[in-house]
Amino acid sequence: MKHGETIAWRDNALVLIDQTRLPGKLVYKRCTTARQVWQAIRTLQVRGAPAIGAAAAFGMVLGLRGGRHPSRAAVLRQVDALHAYLSGARPTAVNLFWALDRMRRRAQASADRHSPAAIREILLREAQAIAEEDRRNCRAMAAQGQALVPQRARILTVCNTGALATIDYGTALGVVYRAAELRKRITVYACETRPLLQGARLTCWELLRRKIDVTLICDNMAAYLMQQKKIDCVFIGADRIAANGDTANKIGSYSLAVAARFHKIPFYVAAPRSTIDPAVPSRAGIVIEERAAEEVRRVCGGPLIAPPDVPVYNPAFDTVPAALISAIVTEAGVARPPYRTAIRKLLRR
Amino acid sequence: MKHGETIAWRDNALVLIDQTRLPGKLVYKRCTTARQVWQAIRTLQVRGAPAIGAAAAFGMVLGLRGGRHPSRAAVLRQVDALHAYLSGARPTAVNLFWALDRMRRRAQASADRHSPAAIREILLREAQAIAEEDRRNCRAMAAQGQALVPQRARILTVCNTGALATIDYGTALGVVYRAAELRKRITVYACETRPLLQGARLTCWELLRRKIDVTLICDNMAAYLMQQKKIDCVFIGADRIAANGDTANKIGSYSLAVAARFHKIPFYVAAPRSTIDPAVPSRAGIVIEERAAEEVRRVCGGPLIAPPDVPVYNPAFDTVPAALISAIVTEAGVARPPYRTAIRKLLRR
Repeated sequence: MKHGETIAWRDNALVLIDQTRLPGKLVYKRCTTARQVWQAIRTLQVRGAPAIGAAAAFGMVLGLRGGRHPSRAAVLRQVDALHAYLSGARPTAVNLFWALDRMRRRAQASADRHSPAAIREILLREAQAIAEEDRRNCRAMAAQGQALVPQRARILTVCNTGALATIDYGTALGVVYRAAELRKRITVYACETRPLLQGARLTCWELLRRKIDVTLICDNMAAYLMQQKKIDCVFIGADRIAANGDTANKIGSYSLAVAARFHKIPFYVAAPRSTIDPAVPSRAGIVIEERAAEEVRRVCGGPLIAPPDVPVYNPAFDTVPAALISAIVTEAGVARPPYRTAIRKLLRR
Repeated sequence: MKHGETIAWRDNALVLIDQTRLPGKLVYKRCTTARQVWQAIRTLQVRGAPAIGAAAAFGMVLGLRGGRHPSRAAVLRQVDALHAYLSGARPTAVNLFWALDRMRRRAQASADRHSPAAIREILLREAQAIAEEDRRNCRAMAAQGQALVPQRARILTVCNTGALATIDYGTALGVVYRAAELRKRITVYACETRPLLQGARLTCWELLRRKIDVTLICDNMAAYLMQQKKIDCVFIGADRIAANGDTANKIGSYSLAVAARFHKIPFYVAAPRSTIDPAVPSRAGIVIEERAAEEVRRVCGGPLIAPPDVPVYNPAFDTVPAALISAIVTEAGVARPPYRTAIRKLLRR
């Protein structure tokens, strides 16, 4: 795989970095079945809204390879089944459904002119197009977003929104990378992002590899940094953006948004348009994934850090109301309030 | 030791629960030298502002037992030396200095009327008085504070402010205990409190033992709970309270204070008057302890959760401006804004 690539199609398989092993080990997982892709998404071996969208598309391709298709209708039936199956891997990031919807539409549109084998080929090319577009979108987002980043900016971020969350480069971290390439002397404060520590494990790993100044903090230290005037802006990714500009993001984002507003610090969201869900009017309509108590009671599968029987609340995401977001950076431009109009315009471009 | 007792004087030694072993094991550590007490405080085997004050007082007693005192002046010289030594264990909680100052004043006041051996006896009784007063103060604080707690309150807290942070019962958790004893049907949300997880390890352990409804969350989930209207009030302890009502508290407290203000949720601090430092005008004068990067890069001494070379910022405390505090609960009454006057009155009682 190329340096910085998170997922790639190689020799009839989906190869992806097993992100649960980082930063200790850089291990690649080879998926040859839809089930392996489902598991990789469910267990966060691949995570990040754009990355799981592309992974699911390849998962559909792999699932079709394992099937027998005496007719075009049989292909479409299996496409439907794989759509339902892979959609169930995780509920919040809309890119998963967006990519699977797009694959299904492509299958349906090809069905009356092509053989089952040809449809499968067309769907492979569609999955590759999704990945390739994501790659281009990240660069375009970075170009749009870096204009918001002042010289010597000290940027706070949460979770991982870099190459590992996409095909390569990243969303919010892509903005950081571009600003750094333009020699803006960026400093990043990375929130560790409990419970699964994507900030500590993945963001720090990426930033060190790219020789960008990074300091790791615990999530509960972010507001204190703002109080000390050590943060110039917040950049985060998104897992779903409602029609009104409300966003669902990694748990902890809302806390940062509230603190940023209190300290009058700009709070930016960077995400491709595939993260926008125009069918959802506001954050009230977004399903927030709740994950297992053990993720909180243990750290990365280590020993118990709490009594084994203590009840746990473990939402994987939270929602940030549009009113707390200074701007939303996409590959097609930067949306500013009022978001409803701005988002409608972006989707039309 | 009695149920719920965190530190006690037994058979010429200071016996304390080694809190670094909880919740896995309930292990008692027996200290017979000042050095052992210093280490217990430094490594957080004993922690919580009131508890380390009392522990340090007993540490002075143990240090004097190890010395030879041909004269009263020799006792006072060693008291000075032990004061300096034990003060260096941790910098933020003022109770440490308060207790050591009190011990030294007692020694000085006794010096011209008593023999070296008698002075040592007097200092043991003083340390025991400090512990006994803390026990009474916690009950008085709880009685004062519970009046602020509505029926069926859902209380958010951080770190551990219970029996383990004091001699027994606790400060902010003492308020919870009293409210629960009065059958108010309390629910507690305990922030895990990275990096050292006193909330997950200690608060959950205490609350489960007392059969109080508790749910563990990661620190970054607190604001999201408030957004969902699941929190009625926040109760935290304090490590130092400035003359103007600013407080220094466990890291993460400031973030909760900002979120509470944003959501118009009452934010209460509970601490004995020994936590008030009238010599410090405001939070600007409070030294914030910064601890080792390894506390963040590893969890409870487990495997690395971040690249080994990533820079870390690890403040053990932060400060909450008085303007964000709804009330300060002490054993002598509840202070409300304006705090400068209210605190002066409390100290005069």
